[in-house]
Amino acid sequence: MKQDVDIVMKFLEGNQMDDYYYINIAYKEALKAYKKNEVPVGCCIVKDGIILARAHNLRETKKLSLAHAEVEAIRKACKKANAKFLDGATIYITLEPCLMCLGAIIQARISKVVYSLNEPKFGSIVSIGNTLKDYKLNHTIEVHQGLMEDEVSELMKSFFQELRKK
Amino acid sequence: MKQDVDIVMKFLEGNQMDDYYYINIAYKEALKAYKKNEVPVGCCIVKDGIILARAHNLRETKKLSLAHAEVEAIRKACKKANAKFLDGATIYITLEPCLMCLGAIIQARISKVVYSLNEPKFGSIVSIGNTLKDYKLNHTIEVHQGLMEDEVSELMKSFFQELRKK
Repeated sequence: MKQDVDIVMKFLEGNQMDDYYYINIAYKEALKAYKKNEVPVGCCIVKDGIILARAHNLRETKKLSLAHAEVEAIRKACKKANAKFLDGATIYITLEPCLMCLGAIIQARISKVVYSLNEPKFGSIVSIGNTLKDYKLNHTIEVHQGLMEDEVSELMKSFFQELRKK
Repeated sequence: MKQDVDIVMKFLEGNQMDDYYYINIAYKEALKAYKKNEVPVGCCIVKDGIILARAHNLRETKKLSLAHAEVEAIRKACKKANAKFLDGATIYITLEPCLMCLGAIIQARISKVVYSLNEPKFGSIVSIGNTLKDYKLNHTIEVHQGLMEDEVSELMKSFFQELRKK
């Protein structure tokens, strides 16, 4: 019994370690966006321990309203996996996804979303609505919020403070 | 007074004529998708009487879950307009947009949606939820449904009947 508990604990710790590792990669992507004067959002997509895509927000650079980090990452991941769907994959994002990005996550059949910070204006997981609960979706998605929340919050504040100065 | 009413009537008729003209272009795009064995959805984006983009569903061809007609069209339209946002534009779609596509329409700040047929499984304007009303969105979008509904309904039925035979 004790041994079983140890194994479960180890497994959980291992998983959390993984989540922390990958959300850090998303955070590094957000830093890249920051340096380009883009709203600093980053993300990565992981399946079976393999990073399928890393991406950051490129709306200004690409002059394209669709170029959110998540959409960019799903595009790359589908190409790398040579697959239309990403069942079993986890997306790590620094910010709560908007309606478009959550819709893209659903369309890509991603299984798990791990994100750092809630986004009161556009976030569609808990902020403007609880889309995954409210809508009759066929698809179940596991959601975890809060990893690296403080760091991301600081990054966002710093970005918008600088923007206001300009 | 009579003259004013005539002008208003003429304007309304003109607008409806335009809507019928452009939804026909969307329908022709859906036919292109049909010929490629893609779920037959087509769309076009119009601003100030100029067609900024025509596109159809390319999910199978591109092996990409994001390649819905609307996303493809918004990408093209932003490129053509050399602008991140499409304020004042109308999107004509043969089918009720899914959550991702409605999100993309919101992100692109498109002003009006004209679509033919409701989509009970994924449609996010009236079918799985009434996103534009339910959510506290900053953005107001005018919506018209029903133009060429019968033609699109026939096309969808025919596509899925053939798919079942295969």
